[in-house]
Amino acid sequence: MNKEQIALGFKNLQEEICKELEKMDGQGGAQFRSDNWTRPEGGGGRTNTIRQGKVLEKGGVAFSEVFGVISPEMKKQLNFNAGEHFYATGISIVLHPNNPHVPIIHMNVRYFQMDETAYWFGGGIDLTPHYIIPENARLFHHELKGICDAFDPAFYPQFKKQADDYFFLPHREETRGIGGIFYDHLSHENCSLSKEKLYDFAAALAGNFVRIYAQQVELGKDKTFSESEIQWRNIRRGRYVEFNLVHDRGTKFGLHSGGRTESILMSLPALAEWEYDFQVAPNSPEAFTLEHLKKDIIW
Amino acid sequence: MNKEQIALGFKNLQEEICKELEKMDGQGGAQFRSDNWTRPEGGGGRTNTIRQGKVLEKGGVAFSEVFGVISPEMKKQLNFNAGEHFYATGISIVLHPNNPHVPIIHMNVRYFQMDETAYWFGGGIDLTPHYIIPENARLFHHELKGICDAFDPAFYPQFKKQADDYFFLPHREETRGIGGIFYDHLSHENCSLSKEKLYDFAAALAGNFVRIYAQQVELGKDKTFSESEIQWRNIRRGRYVEFNLVHDRGTKFGLHSGGRTESILMSLPALAEWEYDFQVAPNSPEAFTLEHLKKDIIW
Repeated sequence: MNKEQIALGFKNLQEEICKELEKMDGQGGAQFRSDNWTRPEGGGGRTNTIRQGKVLEKGGVAFSEVFGVISPEMKKQLNFNAGEHFYATGISIVLHPNNPHVPIIHMNVRYFQMDETAYWFGGGIDLTPHYIIPENARLFHHELKGICDAFDPAFYPQFKKQADDYFFLPHREETRGIGGIFYDHLSHENCSLSKEKLYDFAAALAGNFVRIYAQQVELGKDKTFSESEIQWRNIRRGRYVEFNLVHDRGTKFGLHSGGRTESILMSLPALAEWEYDFQVAPNSPEAFTLEHLKKDIIW
Repeated sequence: MNKEQIALGFKNLQEEICKELEKMDGQGGAQFRSDNWTRPEGGGGRTNTIRQGKVLEKGGVAFSEVFGVISPEMKKQLNFNAGEHFYATGISIVLHPNNPHVPIIHMNVRYFQMDETAYWFGGGIDLTPHYIIPENARLFHHELKGICDAFDPAFYPQFKKQADDYFFLPHREETRGIGGIFYDHLSHENCSLSKEKLYDFAAALAGNFVRIYAQQVELGKDKTFSESEIQWRNIRRGRYVEFNLVHDRGTKFGLHSGGRTESILMSLPALAEWEYDFQVAPNSPEAFTLEHLKKDIIW
């Protein structure tokens, strides 16, 4: 399987995902708008964004395929020193819903190649409920485990832990949400799957993404909400912004290496809020959520 | 002049500034709330915050005095390799107004000492109007130049340029606002002033801060504003968040070195907004503002 086939597969998956998400947003909902862009140093992408839908307030589903000479900064970031030319393709998704009772979701699958000598896959899905409900979190993890297990039963426990470690705000001592799965630097050399199977795994995650999110949407979208629940949603979004701008490797690397700013920052919410030393009421759903923004919870 | 005297001076200045800002916020305006905190490794501070004032929607005036063993990360950040123990004290201010026609302002003055062998002062003031008006920008820079010139006529041109370079978002190719002054690593060894005079310079900036901001407030606070001007204010605030979380050295260093998160992030606005590929109308005040978010403008 060559890089062109992988990129084509990802591009088709992007299109499918957008169609399914428009369907999920419902009759009279919003439609994606497509932006095609090229990268002067090589490659380009298509950034699809949605705004003011019925379910989705703001979101993006981005495909990119970029290549060129590898810079010293890139080598440092990738922790990989051999090679002169890189090739990278992937899909990246972040969706911010209107209703505080519907979670934020993120998905990314990517393929990286160094010259013709080395390649790896990476990716992940994680869920950020504004309000954590263990039953819903369990369903989400159950779905991810099902996909992982079909490829290798060792994947889920390992990738679940990596998600807990990655989607974490040290300065808040909080996880971003209830985690999910996260993997990187995976090739036939360090796991049980062939290159083709590793692509299939990425495609299975992307192919099941909308179905898994639609379950979560269904569980929250018809709940009513108050002004104070909107404020809490906005404060949780503020934490999402903090994670993405301060910690997320892709965002930091993209912004510092001259990536396309609008595509990178499509992950940010519409409105976000910060309050000094915000306190939640004892025994409230907000307090319950904070107590469960912890690593290593077995949902 | 020893570090205790400097810290005491800064602490008194913090108190004065808060009183003057409360006065500026007017009859029936908001009052600062004080949070005293201690740092387990040594030192502590007082973070004063204001919320939902008549002029000031959200702001903070923070004093801190921290000391301890210098970590390898700190050395790297400070670009200074000698010494085992550090001492740092300073005042840090960010104010976000309600009215889009009133600018955001930031001020910081700080004193740093390494063992008993080296010290330096740093600081700056910069203004971020949501709507740039050259006449108002000129007044602001004129005031800063006046303070600088009283100490050394070489200061303003040098520090103005440093502010342009520092308060800059490379990923947007925008300055944060209309700049101001920024200086760092200043001691009697590399400038015309004695240690006492360097303290006096910091105290002059802090002592004139409210007067200079009140001029800007006066020029905008009674202007009416529309929903779309609020949106623009929120989008400009989003850029402020980007600068602080992605580029600001103090914020990054603080968050990564275990600083007090709430005090560091008091600089963030209440509500901020992000839109994908936001476009301003041609020839609008928003377009004018974007065109003037450039380095090296002589106001």
